[in-house]
Amino acid sequence: MKKILVIGSVALDTITTPMGSSREVLGGSATYFSISASFFARVNLVATVGMDFPDRHRSLIKSFGVDTKGLETKKGKTFRWKGSYVEDLNCAKTIETQLNVFADFRPKIPGVYKNSEFIFLANIDPDLQLFILKQFKGKRFIGCDSMNYWIQNKGPALKRLMKKVSFVFLNDAEARLFSGESNIMKAGKYLLSLGPRLAIIKRGEYGAILFAKDRLLLLTPAYLLETVCDPTGAGDTFAGGFMGYLARSGRINDETVRSALLHGSVMASFTVEDFSVNRFLKLKKKDIEKRYNNFRKLTMA
Amino acid sequence: MKKILVIGSVALDTITTPMGSSREVLGGSATYFSISASFFARVNLVATVGMDFPDRHRSLIKSFGVDTKGLETKKGKTFRWKGSYVEDLNCAKTIETQLNVFADFRPKIPGVYKNSEFIFLANIDPDLQLFILKQFKGKRFIGCDSMNYWIQNKGPALKRLMKKVSFVFLNDAEARLFSGESNIMKAGKYLLSLGPRLAIIKRGEYGAILFAKDRLLLLTPAYLLETVCDPTGAGDTFAGGFMGYLARSGRINDETVRSALLHGSVMASFTVEDFSVNRFLKLKKKDIEKRYNNFRKLTMA
Repeated sequence: MKKILVIGSVALDTITTPMGSSREVLGGSATYFSISASFFARVNLVATVGMDFPDRHRSLIKSFGVDTKGLETKKGKTFRWKGSYVEDLNCAKTIETQLNVFADFRPKIPGVYKNSEFIFLANIDPDLQLFILKQFKGKRFIGCDSMNYWIQNKGPALKRLMKKVSFVFLNDAEARLFSGESNIMKAGKYLLSLGPRLAIIKRGEYGAILFAKDRLLLLTPAYLLETVCDPTGAGDTFAGGFMGYLARSGRINDETVRSALLHGSVMASFTVEDFSVNRFLKLKKKDIEKRYNNFRKLTMA
Repeated sequence: MKKILVIGSVALDTITTPMGSSREVLGGSATYFSISASFFARVNLVATVGMDFPDRHRSLIKSFGVDTKGLETKKGKTFRWKGSYVEDLNCAKTIETQLNVFADFRPKIPGVYKNSEFIFLANIDPDLQLFILKQFKGKRFIGCDSMNYWIQNKGPALKRLMKKVSFVFLNDAEARLFSGESNIMKAGKYLLSLGPRLAIIKRGEYGAILFAKDRLLLLTPAYLLETVCDPTGAGDTFAGGFMGYLARSGRINDETVRSALLHGSVMASFTVEDFSVNRFLKLKKKDIEKRYNNFRKLTMA
């Protein structure tokens, strides 16, 4: 089994959805990614939190077998995000962002993590993503995420990053913005033209699209749920399932990446069933397998 | 091969999309449905047009092998619809509707059409859909479409209709409105609870969902295109491909309805590539087979 390293945020989220609200709960891109990937592979986590970060949250992440030596505690407060999905379950409305210790995040990768074969650069400044990659030698499978803000303000850095990554994960609005193409097929081809081996365009409740080399490889709907509680973290959970599955299978070919996409969707479908990472507390590997098989059946005509 | 009868509108459309515009071109639910279904089965058409309806349009419909004996010409003008997709390709904005002769549409089904095994009631007043059904004896496979206006204004009639149909086709917004459920899984189950054997929820560029008996049967994305010219008629074309495929196969079981859903998607993907029914003028059966096989490959993980 290959090791995965994730570099991103660990946060305290306060969230309101049509199903209720949660206050100062465990969140952050690296949290969702690492817990999701932990069901498939060994995960190393690099992030930073403040002195106020509850011990129980650190213990919870560790309870999934995630290595948290790279989770540094700094003087100051933990990154906080306050969001609402009351108007639209598909789109978070940010009410408040307090970067706190995350504002100075400039991670030095611990030596023991440098043998990670898979690396996920969660959504941070692309210059910082490039800075992180410089700390690695040799070939790795690198995945990255980004967001509208960086596309608009750090386009050139993001394009340089694209040359160095294997997998890029963007949602459809981000892919359209980055490519300048309103058509999603053209947007996907544009992403591939920048360098990555695979481009994964996430469409929330409508599924995901996988582009490989110069072609469309897989179109998948999202797993349909009767209850969606909180969409926070779905994208990072998806990436965690995708890269986790690839790390576990050890091979990257058409068959494994197709299956990885479905595993990413399945993991995301669990996340949204509860607030924070609560759904994972009672999740068993056999639940994943069962939903994966059901999903596969539901998408095979 | 079974015969399909469609009862709906034949219209003259004036449409603007980001790709251009068309003026007084052939449109209408029964037009799109019948031409789409004609690639799979024998189609009988019941609709009404005015004295101004161009002969070349009638000839064009006939050129697909559609029986147009039921296309009645009445004193007055043909139904006209003016729409725009400039703001949103997924949602038509109606600029003008002139019902003209369609306002008095109260079709008497020609005797020779009464042996049609499959009947599609396109989007018209549900009381009229019920009136049409009364003209048939014995068991048939009946499909129907509807729209927000009837859901809001003729809910009870629409519910009565649901008891008498085999397949209901609605888009996601309509399904949510009719069911009062914002969750699409619950909306699908609600539709089935009213009586139909299958409920097909169309999600435009995001695909379709098939509910059967008391369960979800198939989730499918839409075929991804590089060029979408005009979405008009996609829903009726979808229904035409779906019912046409079932009529051709002659059997209705999990396997054939799954394949029917993909065939509906494939036919819809052709329609939107050009204005009016233009794409069908050069469409060959082998093009359908080729895209179906490609689509199947693209959706199989």
